[in-house]
Amino acid sequence: MPWRLNSTDVGFEPDFAALLGAKREQSADVDAAVRTIVARVRSEGDAALIELTRQFDQLDLTPSTMRVGEAEIDAAYEATPIETLRALEFAHERIASHHRRQLPKDDRYTDQIGVELGSRWTAIESVGLYVPGGMASYPSSVLMNAVPAKVAGVGRIAMVVPAMRGALNPLVLAAAKIVGVREIYRIGGAQAVAALAYGTETIAPVAKIVGPGNAFVAAAKRHVFGHVGIDMIAGPSEILVIADAGNDPDWIAADLLSQAEHDTAAQSILITDDAGFADAVEAAVERQLKSLSRAETAAKSWAEHGAIILVPTLDDAAPLSDRIAPEHLELAVEDPEALFAKLRNAGAVFLGRHTPEVIGDYVGGSNHVLPTARSARFSSGLSVLDFVKRTSILKLSAEQLRELGPAAIELARVEGLDAHGRSVAIRLNL
Amino acid sequence: MPWRLNSTDVGFEPDFAALLGAKREQSADVDAAVRTIVARVRSEGDAALIELTRQFDQLDLTPSTMRVGEAEIDAAYEATPIETLRALEFAHERIASHHRRQLPKDDRYTDQIGVELGSRWTAIESVGLYVPGGMASYPSSVLMNAVPAKVAGVGRIAMVVPAMRGALNPLVLAAAKIVGVREIYRIGGAQAVAALAYGTETIAPVAKIVGPGNAFVAAAKRHVFGHVGIDMIAGPSEILVIADAGNDPDWIAADLLSQAEHDTAAQSILITDDAGFADAVEAAVERQLKSLSRAETAAKSWAEHGAIILVPTLDDAAPLSDRIAPEHLELAVEDPEALFAKLRNAGAVFLGRHTPEVIGDYVGGSNHVLPTARSARFSSGLSVLDFVKRTSILKLSAEQLRELGPAAIELARVEGLDAHGRSVAIRLNL
Repeated sequence: MPWRLNSTDVGFEPDFAALLGAKREQSADVDAAVRTIVARVRSEGDAALIELTRQFDQLDLTPSTMRVGEAEIDAAYEATPIETLRALEFAHERIASHHRRQLPKDDRYTDQIGVELGSRWTAIESVGLYVPGGMASYPSSVLMNAVPAKVAGVGRIAMVVPAMRGALNPLVLAAAKIVGVREIYRIGGAQAVAALAYGTETIAPVAKIVGPGNAFVAAAKRHVFGHVGIDMIAGPSEILVIADAGNDPDWIAADLLSQAEHDTAAQSILITDDAGFADAVEAAVERQLKSLSRAETAAKSWAEHGAIILVPTLDDAAPLSDRIAPEHLELAVEDPEALFAKLRNAGAVFLGRHTPEVIGDYVGGSNHVLPTARSARFSSGLSVLDFVKRTSILKLSAEQLRELGPAAIELARVEGLDAHGRSVAIRLNL
Repeated sequence: MPWRLNSTDVGFEPDFAALLGAKREQSADVDAAVRTIVARVRSEGDAALIELTRQFDQLDLTPSTMRVGEAEIDAAYEATPIETLRALEFAHERIASHHRRQLPKDDRYTDQIGVELGSRWTAIESVGLYVPGGMASYPSSVLMNAVPAKVAGVGRIAMVVPAMRGALNPLVLAAAKIVGVREIYRIGGAQAVAALAYGTETIAPVAKIVGPGNAFVAAAKRHVFGHVGIDMIAGPSEILVIADAGNDPDWIAADLLSQAEHDTAAQSILITDDAGFADAVEAAVERQLKSLSRAETAAKSWAEHGAIILVPTLDDAAPLSDRIAPEHLELAVEDPEALFAKLRNAGAVFLGRHTPEVIGDYVGGSNHVLPTARSARFSSGLSVLDFVKRTSILKLSAEQLRELGPAAIELARVEGLDAHGRSVAIRLNL
């Protein structure tokens, strides 16, 4: 049974706080193991990588078979059914087209005093892309992570994907070919993250590592952070649907289940102003659950983390939504724009009854890598900005230094930084 | 003695790699202590904060004296000499003016199919600003951290600053008043970070925490990361000066010392194409060192981490500079723009002989919170972007869903996600 809350109940606030605070993930304490793995790869390079891959993935590699060959990538692409290729290419084009609008612009200007200021953006030179193996090995995830890097102008993208007993998902290779990623290694886990961060004889190090992974991968990314950049640490998927009684309960039930089927720790929440509609959606969820191939996962997620919250009016949904700060937010209401204007914390918003969140997972064009676990309060989804960095620019001539210098000397003085003051004063003969 | 390298020497590459890899910071292992402190503040709130402040800062607080009163802030401002206030206000205006150009623009458009897409930026609701006590308690740092938050539109900025035995730097309070920060608590260390992240009876929690601090503060920020956002973890300051023989050696020596005086772990590097100039700068550094109030700190930094690298031509400096990826990069050469065009990794660049880095520390207008420890390869200085987050937008009507739906259904099918496919198919009566 999902949580049932009513915002007008006396006990609502503590219940809602409990829903927000509920721990969904069992964070396995893998830090010690990861520390050892990273240290080994760092000191022993390929040898450690090969041994750890034998141990964890039951796969025998050599330095020459570590990398997936061009022929193997091409073969995977050729073997992909044409309708799947078309869907991947359609998605790729739409994602690339949307992300090209995110390229930041350089800025260079001269202020009233004559000081030149500016910002220059450049692409990160090299990026590592982690792609999970097994059940969570998704070609759409390759597109979502690699396209913004390509659009940013990243020169080198090195992809790693674990091949348990040698098996690789051919669709992941096909997606890589479509984006233009040609450097692919059949390695995974903390050892792959370590190889990307520190390099081995075969794998050159990268400057930043992105992409989803299990607890070992997440811990390894945290561990190498600082030496290289990382993207966010993604938690289990979430959806909040704000819906009025004007919806077909079956549509909304399907949307709630689309996140629940990802993971038993996923969370699907419905906020509605109509108790009858709430009941109808709950009944529809129960009905639809049965026919899912991932029924067990979805049922557990819905029973443990699912929630239905009743509010007097849809306007009352806005502050609750902002406290939840959902990864995905569907506004299946009559006037979604008006409601959206009242909201601020959400990774992605899907406006109206005909915009199921799943469109954003695949072909909408926006990115499906989004902030989870309430982090939309302070962070954003993956974008081109994650693959560029900014250099700030200052340029003065002797004249502007005379204008700005005295204030800098004064501040250096009160901060007790003599050499700071001197580096200005000496140029002004002070 | 600083490192001396010559890029044409046979042994240059390993020496340069050793310079890049040299550990400058002793990272004290304070994780266990920090974990305990954070857990205590989280469970005991104000009581823990008061006890820990007594223990670490030798200061007795009560819930009502924790916050610095408006009268105390005003008094600090009034007591500040007029020339210092003028310098702070001049800096404030220039920083605010530059950062206003960084406000990202919303984007909303309709593509050829009729799908509406977009990005909407909103300010983070509340931000905590850590300001160190003691020697590193700088009013300029208050400006650099608080101004971008203000410009972004952050509604609430809560500042914490430790008051060892009750002492607060009045200039820090004056700077806070100038930026318009009125919520200030006299607490510090890991306990202050915990209070900002989780809240206490007296301090409401924030969504993101920024600002520099010691090893305890850095470890606490890492610890609460995920529950709240954090800015970068700043390392010791660095400067790389690329200079030709056309400079006054004394000017360049002063610039090198301006970073060395910050910290014994700071690093100052000179790259030049003229051996005689290199010697002259080294001699000037030795000479100038003696008169600094922080002579001991600067001497140790210069002797242990300082470096002079000789290159055949200035063009040879570019790839070395990109590998160093310096926090601050001065191009004190005849044609700085041409050299800048050949470089990509630097937090901030200072063009020409009349732009000492110190101008950027105080009054240039750009931010002085910049990526250290080679992280300019993958990250940027503090900006307005650190205080906003983006919601991506999708909006389809039934017609566009018919266009996009089939590809989404196909991708959901090959990824084995039934409910994903159904949430689209059910709307298309498929």
